[in-house]
Amino acid sequence: MNAVIDYGNSRIKVGLFENSELRKKETFSEEKDFISFINDNSIANLLVSSVTKAEHDLPKEIHVEGNRYFLTHTLPLPVTIKYKTPETLGVDRIAAACGAVAVMPDRDLLVIDAGTCVNIECIDRELTYHGGSIAPGIKMRFDAMHQFTSRLPLISAKADPDLIGASTEECMQSGVVNGMLAEVNGIIDLYKRIYPNMGVILCGGDSSFFENNVKHPIFVAPDLVLIGLNRILLHNVGL
Amino acid sequence: MNAVIDYGNSRIKVGLFENSELRKKETFSEEKDFISFINDNSIANLLVSSVTKAEHDLPKEIHVEGNRYFLTHTLPLPVTIKYKTPETLGVDRIAAACGAVAVMPDRDLLVIDAGTCVNIECIDRELTYHGGSIAPGIKMRFDAMHQFTSRLPLISAKADPDLIGASTEECMQSGVVNGMLAEVNGIIDLYKRIYPNMGVILCGGDSSFFENNVKHPIFVAPDLVLIGLNRILLHNVGL
Repeated sequence: MNAVIDYGNSRIKVGLFENSELRKKETFSEEKDFISFINDNSIANLLVSSVTKAEHDLPKEIHVEGNRYFLTHTLPLPVTIKYKTPETLGVDRIAAACGAVAVMPDRDLLVIDAGTCVNIECIDRELTYHGGSIAPGIKMRFDAMHQFTSRLPLISAKADPDLIGASTEECMQSGVVNGMLAEVNGIIDLYKRIYPNMGVILCGGDSSFFENNVKHPIFVAPDLVLIGLNRILLHNVGL
Repeated sequence: MNAVIDYGNSRIKVGLFENSELRKKETFSEEKDFISFINDNSIANLLVSSVTKAEHDLPKEIHVEGNRYFLTHTLPLPVTIKYKTPETLGVDRIAAACGAVAVMPDRDLLVIDAGTCVNIECIDRELTYHGGSIAPGIKMRFDAMHQFTSRLPLISAKADPDLIGASTEECMQSGVVNGMLAEVNGIIDLYKRIYPNMGVILCGGDSSFFENNVKHPIFVAPDLVLIGLNRILLHNVGL
């Protein structure tokens, strides 16, 4: 089995793949638990991706039979990156784009990754990654209104708020949640003018706010980043 | 002449009205300049509104021939406030709603006040204020992405960014500016399902980002808050 690792600040996500199939998925908060897990599973090839850590910060105690890779924009990729500043392109965005072409091949694609930020990625059917957009995510919008004003409370999102908020809290819920849905629906509309048959793929921790409220047919892929990392690993191993 | 004052933290906006006509408008950063201006203009009646200051914090040296008022939700208003928590309803929002019924009477109305936050206010043709929504404004979205992530730069908005950003900065511009436009257009659509003939009024410092990019007919009223304050003042003076 091959392993891909999405190495975050506070959690380490591991996916074990047999060819293109995700066989096992685990999330660790402790590095030692993660190391035991990898070493217990006799890994053939390994790809590590980290938005926050450098390659030399990663644990050395991992045993791998074959090759190990660390994701940067210079690693050979299954998509062509057409981005003016590839050195500033987050590896999470590269992984999501590569996951998209793995789950929905031969189509123009839009990825909506709804997490801390809402990242949108556009990949055409010729496997060219064009870029997209970055906007504040749901929690960040609530945090910002509280932190950057003197009068608004700190609240967290609830699903399906009324359009017309009738209290400060309801107004903030509507502004963030209904606003975000309107934004994503409108942005998909704009992309569909360029790529009428585009497939739309949704991932990220806030997917649940969107999956039943987007007007367009949408494919929800919670493991898109892991799938993308595996796609990159297979590309490099030559499989 | 009557005077209305929008008393902010860093700037004091004054409008001088003859009945419903705005005759003079000035913005001051120094309290002493503002006091001289008022006292030089022999003011009949005065209404002060402040989101941040209490009535007793306001300068005492202002001479007024008639009545003076300080805006709170308990002051008699030309609209009926149907809001669950009127004590937390910002006076800027009350003023914008009252300005709307002054500039576009006898219609269901939606106000979009695009400033630090984007406040949306809904007032029906029976002059009932229902509430609306509050979302982060354009600058706040950029500030939040920089402050709440470790990797995104601090940038400021530019008009008409490309939909598909091809650098980190372009992606942020598209996410914030195009995202905000899509959001506002989508929210107007949702309101129009409830109030099909609703008039839409735009005000606030970021109006220029919206005025040529909103799909619906839209009335741009940069002085909406001052006009609303004057409408409230006339209501209280009994004119």
